[in-house]
Amino acid sequence: MPLSISKAEMEEMQAFVKHSHRVDLSAYMLELEPEKRALMLRFFSKEQLAELFAELPAEDKINLIESLAQVDLPDILAELDSDELVDSLQELPSNLVTKLLLHIPENRRQVINRLLNYPEGSVGSLMSADYIAVRKRAKVSEVLEKLKTSTAGHEHLNTIFVIDDERRLNGYLYLADLLRLDTEDLSSIIHWRPLTITTGADQEEAAKLFHKYSLLVLPVCDSEQRLVGIITADDIFEVISEEIYEDYALMQGMAPSESSYLETSVITLAKKRIVWLLFLMLSATVTGGIIDHYEAVLSTAVALTAFIPMLMDSGGNSGSQSSTLIIQSLALDELDFSDSVHVVWKEFRVGFLVGTVLALVNILRMLLFTDTDFLVMLTVSVTLLLTIILAKLVGGFLPLLAKKLKQDPAVMAGPLVTTIVDACALLIYFKVAQILIGL
Amino acid sequence: MPLSISKAEMEEMQAFVKHSHRVDLSAYMLELEPEKRALMLRFFSKEQLAELFAELPAEDKINLIESLAQVDLPDILAELDSDELVDSLQELPSNLVTKLLLHIPENRRQVINRLLNYPEGSVGSLMSADYIAVRKRAKVSEVLEKLKTSTAGHEHLNTIFVIDDERRLNGYLYLADLLRLDTEDLSSIIHWRPLTITTGADQEEAAKLFHKYSLLVLPVCDSEQRLVGIITADDIFEVISEEIYEDYALMQGMAPSESSYLETSVITLAKKRIVWLLFLMLSATVTGGIIDHYEAVLSTAVALTAFIPMLMDSGGNSGSQSSTLIIQSLALDELDFSDSVHVVWKEFRVGFLVGTVLALVNILRMLLFTDTDFLVMLTVSVTLLLTIILAKLVGGFLPLLAKKLKQDPAVMAGPLVTTIVDACALLIYFKVAQILIGL
Repeated sequence: MPLSISKAEMEEMQAFVKHSHRVDLSAYMLELEPEKRALMLRFFSKEQLAELFAELPAEDKINLIESLAQVDLPDILAELDSDELVDSLQELPSNLVTKLLLHIPENRRQVINRLLNYPEGSVGSLMSADYIAVRKRAKVSEVLEKLKTSTAGHEHLNTIFVIDDERRLNGYLYLADLLRLDTEDLSSIIHWRPLTITTGADQEEAAKLFHKYSLLVLPVCDSEQRLVGIITADDIFEVISEEIYEDYALMQGMAPSESSYLETSVITLAKKRIVWLLFLMLSATVTGGIIDHYEAVLSTAVALTAFIPMLMDSGGNSGSQSSTLIIQSLALDELDFSDSVHVVWKEFRVGFLVGTVLALVNILRMLLFTDTDFLVMLTVSVTLLLTIILAKLVGGFLPLLAKKLKQDPAVMAGPLVTTIVDACALLIYFKVAQILIGL
Repeated sequence: MPLSISKAEMEEMQAFVKHSHRVDLSAYMLELEPEKRALMLRFFSKEQLAELFAELPAEDKINLIESLAQVDLPDILAELDSDELVDSLQELPSNLVTKLLLHIPENRRQVINRLLNYPEGSVGSLMSADYIAVRKRAKVSEVLEKLKTSTAGHEHLNTIFVIDDERRLNGYLYLADLLRLDTEDLSSIIHWRPLTITTGADQEEAAKLFHKYSLLVLPVCDSEQRLVGIITADDIFEVISEEIYEDYALMQGMAPSESSYLETSVITLAKKRIVWLLFLMLSATVTGGIIDHYEAVLSTAVALTAFIPMLMDSGGNSGSQSSTLIIQSLALDELDFSDSVHVVWKEFRVGFLVGTVLALVNILRMLLFTDTDFLVMLTVSVTLLLTIILAKLVGGFLPLLAKKLKQDPAVMAGPLVTTIVDACALLIYFKVAQILIGL
């Protein structure tokens, strides 16, 4: 079937390629039939091809490489910033990587090879080797000359780094300040002792620095304080949201996922979710055991059974409300273990307040809508109050304890809070019943 | 008590002030006794005082203003970028705002007054009015001249905007590209048809654009496409994490909080948490009603009671695992309502897999560790499988439905998933018991 496309359509396509953002272009391209896609590619400049290449999923990268003329490839690779190139290479099969590396000049290949060796999730794997560094005695004209010949992306050039003869990072200056400078004396605009991070640090640490200090760029040094790369703010949005989502996935007992929901297979999703559910189910041996133990109590006051779901839900949810807030504050470095007394005392008071209101509303509800025995009513309400206080204390303290024990608060707090609160709520319930109803 | 401080301490203090980041300086200042603080302030440059001022909490801002000489105030206010100034003014009591506005030159006061009028959380309240805009026929030298006389912060100058005679935004260019440019013809480096956002948009929308398009700056236009401000990447880190934390707080039935945990009062925390707990408790009338209705079943097979907590926990947690993932994908615009069939089918299969494994492990656990009746064992396992499938379907679909109904998926999904799954799990349990045990 021959592809029929009108001149008007062609012109529209050309205008679309010219004016669209690479993110939208790549999303659009993926929807096109292969013939139209090939046609559209002809309207791309080399810079746009490079941008598109960086944006495409792995499989389409392979297709694009195969449909490109061999002569274009080196130009396109040259257009890519080193972090984009490394990300792309990491996605591709090794035979293709070898082929691509042949098209990269020797000096750049060394940089790329070094970047390829940093573990995923490390600052080294996130950083770019494209930046401008000058000596502190450089003249303004020298700096401008370096800038003019740089092929790095604009986002890598807003800050210029100042190094000594051993490439150790001394400071940095802003391009905007350089242009506003009246003298040839750089040192008046250099910011000394910059914040840095090492290649081996977790990307989460970098995200925390960007967030805390409102950074746009962060220099990366090796263990000897030599400048080896930079991270820019646009790399960090992804990291911030990934790290927070990871915390919450862990709190729900799910292993965090790198890929999007629709791209993740059923088996992978099931695997990521099952461990915690198994843990919860097996730990339910405890709650089951408690109920079995007090079977006599339940069979003399069957009415008590009807309130078990309510008590467990209220306890579990009160606890996870508290741990959510504490895990969030820990992630933002607003809290640490030394605040435990403060947190426990605060959660106790919140629990007492919330629990009292709930217990009173519960009595009202039961008086109005049920004909429950007064002692059962009292048992349920007292248990509700005690369970909520306990849940708030456990939910507030466990994440702090996890942090102190150098465990991930989200991993430890999620499953344990539910398990502990469930078991305690039942024990409280039956104890209160024995005392009040005198079973 | 006279303040004794050695010369060495003074020098150390001076060095600390000179080399510390404003975030660390303000944190350090807050820990100092007032006398030392006053002493330390003497080492601050006006630029540093302005930076410190932007960073301090409201109460300390007031103290700082009061301890400053009246002559310094205009200089310090002039050093602040418009977004920092507006943020500060919004925190201060109105009499102080009036006083401060007197120190701001008339033309700047108009800009500030306009910025002060945007509602909190809007793009208008987040943006800065400090940026450089040029006409598209401007010469390179004119642009550089504008830059030289600008007092805006460096982060506002990396991108230069191109406007027409009606101040409508036409495009932008990068400062780095301007310096790399060889001719006087700006148009070759102008990027036309830029992404923009309007002043009235929610800051969450701006965060999504920064994230999706890896932006460092986003121009803000009014309803007639006139450029009125810019947002820079460093403003966005806070928004991204706030928005995600807000989603999760809402999922746990908590009203999101602007202030940090330690700064929030017990009453406020209790208020934020109680609504959902009340809702859950009242909705438990349903689960209680179901148990009452099947009291006869329970009293003939009391053993069934022991498994109620396990079934409710497994159901509730399976459901919230699914809704967590779906809410996350919705927030990242990876999913919408049209994916419902896809999501439901995927969740069904995940639920079937996970449920089957849990049911089998449960049978094994009961065979090994308990002497439960075979029919009870079968009832529990079948219910477990069905409950988990149901929980995954409800947890996966409800957030999508909420989005379709233009409700916040996090607000709606959290409480409803638990309530619906709890009630259904019990109904399934008793129905299966009636069929299998023949009660």
